[in-house]
Amino acid sequence: MLKVAIIGASGYTGGELLRFLKDHEKVEVVAATSRQYSNTPVRKVHPHLQDLDLKFEDKAPGDIDADLVFTATPHGASMNIVPQLVETGVKVVDLSGDYRFDDISIYEKWYGLKHKKPLDAVYGLPEMYREEIKKANLVANPGCYPTGSILAGIPLVKEGLVDTIIADSKSGVSGAGIKPTPATHYPNISDNIVPYAVTTHRHMPEIQEKLQKFGNVRVSFTPHLVPVIRGIITTLHSFPNQEVTSEEIQQMYKNHYQDEPFVRVLDAGEIPRLSSVRGSNFCHIGCFEIDDNGRLVVVSAIDNIAKGASGAAVANMNLMCGFPETMSLESCGLHP
Amino acid sequence: MLKVAIIGASGYTGGELLRFLKDHEKVEVVAATSRQYSNTPVRKVHPHLQDLDLKFEDKAPGDIDADLVFTATPHGASMNIVPQLVETGVKVVDLSGDYRFDDISIYEKWYGLKHKKPLDAVYGLPEMYREEIKKANLVANPGCYPTGSILAGIPLVKEGLVDTIIADSKSGVSGAGIKPTPATHYPNISDNIVPYAVTTHRHMPEIQEKLQKFGNVRVSFTPHLVPVIRGIITTLHSFPNQEVTSEEIQQMYKNHYQDEPFVRVLDAGEIPRLSSVRGSNFCHIGCFEIDDNGRLVVVSAIDNIAKGASGAAVANMNLMCGFPETMSLESCGLHP
Amino acid sequence: MLKVAIIGASGYTGGELLRFLKDHEKVEVVAATSRQYSNTPVRKVHPHLQDLDLKFEDKAPGDIDADLVFTATPHGASMNIVPQLVETGVKVVDLSGDYRFDDISIYEKWYGLKHKKPLDAVYGLPEMYREEIKKANLVANPGCYPTGSILAGIPLVKEGLVDTIIADSKSGVSGAGIKPTPATHYPNISDNIVPYAVTTHRHMPEIQEKLQKFGNVRVSFTPHLVPVIRGIITTLHSFPNQEVTSEEIQQMYKNHYQDEPFVRVLDAGEIPRLSSVRGSNFCHIGCFEIDDNGRLVVVSAIDNIAKGASGAAVANMNLMCGFPETMSLESCGLHP
Amino acid sequence: MLKVAIIGASGYTGGELLRFLKDHEKVEVVAATSRQYSNTPVRKVHPHLQDLDLKFEDKAPGDIDADLVFTATPHGASMNIVPQLVETGVKVVDLSGDYRFDDISIYEKWYGLKHKKPLDAVYGLPEMYREEIKKANLVANPGCYPTGSILAGIPLVKEGLVDTIIADSKSGVSGAGIKPTPATHYPNISDNIVPYAVTTHRHMPEIQEKLQKFGNVRVSFTPHLVPVIRGIITTLHSFPNQEVTSEEIQQMYKNHYQDEPFVRVLDAGEIPRLSSVRGSNFCHIGCFEIDDNGRLVVVSAIDNIAKGASGAAVANMNLMCGFPETMSLESCGLHP
Repeated sequence: MLKVAIIGASGYTGGELLRFLKDHEKVEVVAATSRQYSNTPVRKVHPHLQDLDLKFEDKAPGDIDADLVFTATPHGASMNIVPQLVETGVKVVDLSGDYRFDDISIYEKWYGLKHKKPLDAVYGLPEMYREEIKKANLVANPGCYPTGSILAGIPLVKEGLVDTIIADSKSGVSGAGIKPTPATHYPNISDNIVPYAVTTHRHMPEIQEKLQKFGNVRVSFTPHLVPVIRGIITTLHSFPNQEVTSEEIQQMYKNHYQDEPFVRVLDAGEIPRLSSVRGSNFCHIGCFEIDDNGRLVVVSAIDNIAKGASGAAVANMNLMCGFPETMSLESCGLHP
Repeated sequence: MLKVAIIGASGYTGGELLRFLKDHEKVEVVAATSRQYSNTPVRKVHPHLQDLDLKFEDKAPGDIDADLVFTATPHGASMNIVPQLVETGVKVVDLSGDYRFDDISIYEKWYGLKHKKPLDAVYGLPEMYREEIKKANLVANPGCYPTGSILAGIPLVKEGLVDTIIADSKSGVSGAGIKPTPATHYPNISDNIVPYAVTTHRHMPEIQEKLQKFGNVRVSFTPHLVPVIRGIITTLHSFPNQEVTSEEIQQMYKNHYQDEPFVRVLDAGEIPRLSSVRGSNFCHIGCFEIDDNGRLVVVSAIDNIAKGASGAAVANMNLMCGFPETMSLESCGLHP
Repeated sequence: MLKVAIIGASGYTGGELLRFLKDHEKVEVVAATSRQYSNTPVRKVHPHLQDLDLKFEDKAPGDIDADLVFTATPHGASMNIVPQLVETGVKVVDLSGDYRFDDISIYEKWYGLKHKKPLDAVYGLPEMYREEIKKANLVANPGCYPTGSILAGIPLVKEGLVDTIIADSKSGVSGAGIKPTPATHYPNISDNIVPYAVTTHRHMPEIQEKLQKFGNVRVSFTPHLVPVIRGIITTLHSFPNQEVTSEEIQQMYKNHYQDEPFVRVLDAGEIPRLSSVRGSNFCHIGCFEIDDNGRLVVVSAIDNIAKGASGAAVANMNLMCGFPETMSLESCGLHP
Repeated sequence: MLKVAIIGASGYTGGELLRFLKDHEKVEVVAATSRQYSNTPVRKVHPHLQDLDLKFEDKAPGDIDADLVFTATPHGASMNIVPQLVETGVKVVDLSGDYRFDDISIYEKWYGLKHKKPLDAVYGLPEMYREEIKKANLVANPGCYPTGSILAGIPLVKEGLVDTIIADSKSGVSGAGIKPTPATHYPNISDNIVPYAVTTHRHMPEIQEKLQKFGNVRVSFTPHLVPVIRGIITTLHSFPNQEVTSEEIQQMYKNHYQDEPFVRVLDAGEIPRLSSVRGSNFCHIGCFEIDDNGRLVVVSAIDNIAKGASGAAVANMNLMCGFPETMSLESCGLHP
């Protein structure tokens, strides 16, 4: 059994890691750390995990005896923990933004931080870097918005069809984390749709840097908080630079993703739905329509905590450790 | 007292007309028609109107004795009713799409209908045609999406700043009407965000025709159904064709709308919220931000049944009848 | 014009008082205090009040020059403010729990506080104490749950029909206030129903003390937080101690409340709906059914911030100042 | 592999059966019938089941070649199908109400139907009849409300502690089925709490008949539709007929359910949450509190489509076929 630890296990991504890992045949969770909830049973914080016989511990990274560690820590905190773990030969999947960027200057500009310890890391989107992930010791797990936007955009950029992409994303509130704030206060977000960080969200440069691996593209991005618990719908608007039909676009996507275990290109007329991916590691992509002005729409749906965070992290672990990529991630979405 | 009738009063726009009219000082509602609910007290269908001593009637338009009639009938039905009313000298506010287009061929293409009886009508957006509405006998009340999109777009188009506008709109479910369908079934739309008519919604040509009164512009439009009862958030994406700052854009909007009784341009940093306009005839516009790619975002919020339908219809009635435009429409939104 | 001030105006009840008062013909709001938001325009906190030209002030009670003051302050805080105001001849409507109890020992037991300054106050439920309120200088505005439960219970207790009442109440999240907490965090309460303070809520003794004015009765009470912004549905279970029919019960309620401006007893077959009272000062009561075991159900619906707090407070102000009780409170609910 | 068919597979319980069965190691789904969707791929109706290579068929029961059949048919329809299946030696789990009652006269009274073909059936609540289910050919799967109410009530009735139980239940909208109705129309149920069938719901006599197997008890029951997709919270109110403490009650429940694979008795201070059981076959029970009037509260939480229908049906299949009871039902709830 692979010994696995989670640093920062009391948040939503920590809870979701524990949910995926508890039934994983090859894994034993040996530690779940939390300063705030030290010595508290995990089920007091994650009430769905009633049968998990585990307590949070306030453990320093150096005291963790594990083969692989998930660092579910905030950006800025991970860079203080990850290097030490990597040095001692532990495999690491980092869920923060600290190791996602090739260009550190972009990270430092958008996160407003000096990076203390850049390291070689593989960007953990298996649909981009599957082979590299298999050999990596440090994987930087993608952001939730980038996962939905990049998967919706890759085929377009790779084929050189678009110069500019506008991603209008709608995210469930769990994406804002477990900590109550005015933005997540029920009376403020229920029955409401709230654009935020309208042109300044940190996931924009991440989407752009990664899509530019496939071709030249400029990315504009606007997120909205919506009255949904889990899930991100991304509506991608673009203007193809050559004549192309809806059918050709859809076929292009079908071809590109045909062997991917977690991406489903929907039939014509089907709409990606959050309930179809709720709680699952799947990404659904559909709605390849073009209007009279030549604008193309592509829509993707993911669960922000699963495929957008902890599900992807478990897939990365599977790849890094030689397990089947889909192990313990086979569940489909919870609809309705 | 002005004698007013509502044809098709059992739907949401009918209920909202009754809500606004019941306390109107200058108006007496003399008839509310409904074939389905003939002889049923209004409060059985509109349970908030407990004190309204009125029954639905199944009355032919010719049998209605009123000074002004609201036709809250479906498109295709209005064109069978409105001409007869107008001929007999009754003022009409039509809430359907039948009289919104200057170019009948656009109507016929997008609504898939032959227009039986085109008439001179004024497009009932007071922010565009206030003076014309005052003199009109027939006012075509705007669609809900067009109201939010046009108000958000006018200053940009008028100043010649943009060639193309992408309106990504998010609408509450009441916009789909009072009749239950799979799309409005709670388990399908709760905790979900559903793009629909992704490039083919009939409100797109309406937005485009009206904005083109202010300048040359192409409009792309994608609506989403969202888990909200009332309200439309429109996120307008565009690329200004000259250097301009956020502050200049905001000032342009402040100037343009400074005398409008129902449009509020928000302060920098404020976000239009559905709760701020819920149940009211106000439109809030804000978020004038420009990103590194030169994309500008403008966001508007309206209540789709109020400012997007029945509130606007009452304002049009006020203008047509020489009452103060804001009469019985003074209420602000219901927040939280 | 009556000069009115609101102490503690930045919360939901403060916002709702301002919404009701801004169009009140006889009232001028001269001050809205808030320590936290001192010098901030009211519209930054209450975004629906865009047109209100008022700033929060951090003003001591002694510095307020008003004829009537609403103290929208937490329990425990009001008792430090109210006596000083009353002494200087200002009329006061207190929205906290501090002056609601006749029996101070009950207050002290359930609120866990020593009462510093008991005063003669009238319990501000016009349906109980209309005449007394007219003459009062200090009115203790009822709690939200008590308003819905007491109005649903009075006729039963008055007629001596029941010995025990179980009130199973379901409250919207605005009842928990404007401050974000884990209980009000969207992912915790959306798609959930959360019983809390299952046998220990402070509103229980308030309901019991007031209903006992009408007869001998024991009250059991369990509140639930539900995914609703505004509104309380109370399901009252009881076992009448004599043979009685649904029709007789309903008639009893119709008779009891026939002259009440804000209570509506629904027709047989109609169900009290939150949307019917949303944003309004009305209470709807219905569902007078009796099952095979002799259990009677009565259901009431109110808006917890309006009839359950600020609407009632304005009605109390109207009564205390000789205005018509319904002034500025005529609006019906916002359905859908 | 056990050959399994689902008759009536296009509804929510059908979709949930398919979700649980698709990864079941011992089962192969050989047919999913639907008249309406004959020849349509299952994924068009159940969009989460994208990978299920199965089409709906319009097949008569006699043409189905299966070892076990789930009849997910409406009450009244099952009695026309089940007898024929049972006669040919097929095992049947019926999800309708047709075979739940020992006393046919109760069925006929509450369902308003003449029962055409009573058969020996075992009531499929493993917590009551595990051993009988193992030997049964026909299992009547319990109703959703009864599952939550009976599990919450058994220990009290068995110990003779209570004479009367009031179950105040709150159900998610999926319980009303996949067909859109005014009650399930988003604008009607969102932001609302709707009591219905206040004293007349058909699940009441089912709860009472089953609980009376454990002792003499009268059951009063009121259901509410709540703005939740999945899940039922039942608040059980009762008055113990002897002195007892919260701790004793909780211990009684812990003892009673200690070996049950799908019932969890929560720690003191923990509240059963719908998200903790969402999508799972678990029932959580908690809140054993007693108030000053001697009223006891017990709260249970289940997922109405899983433990309240299809999860229980799969557990029954497992028991009937000699598989481990928990096979393919191990998943915990989806929180948040």
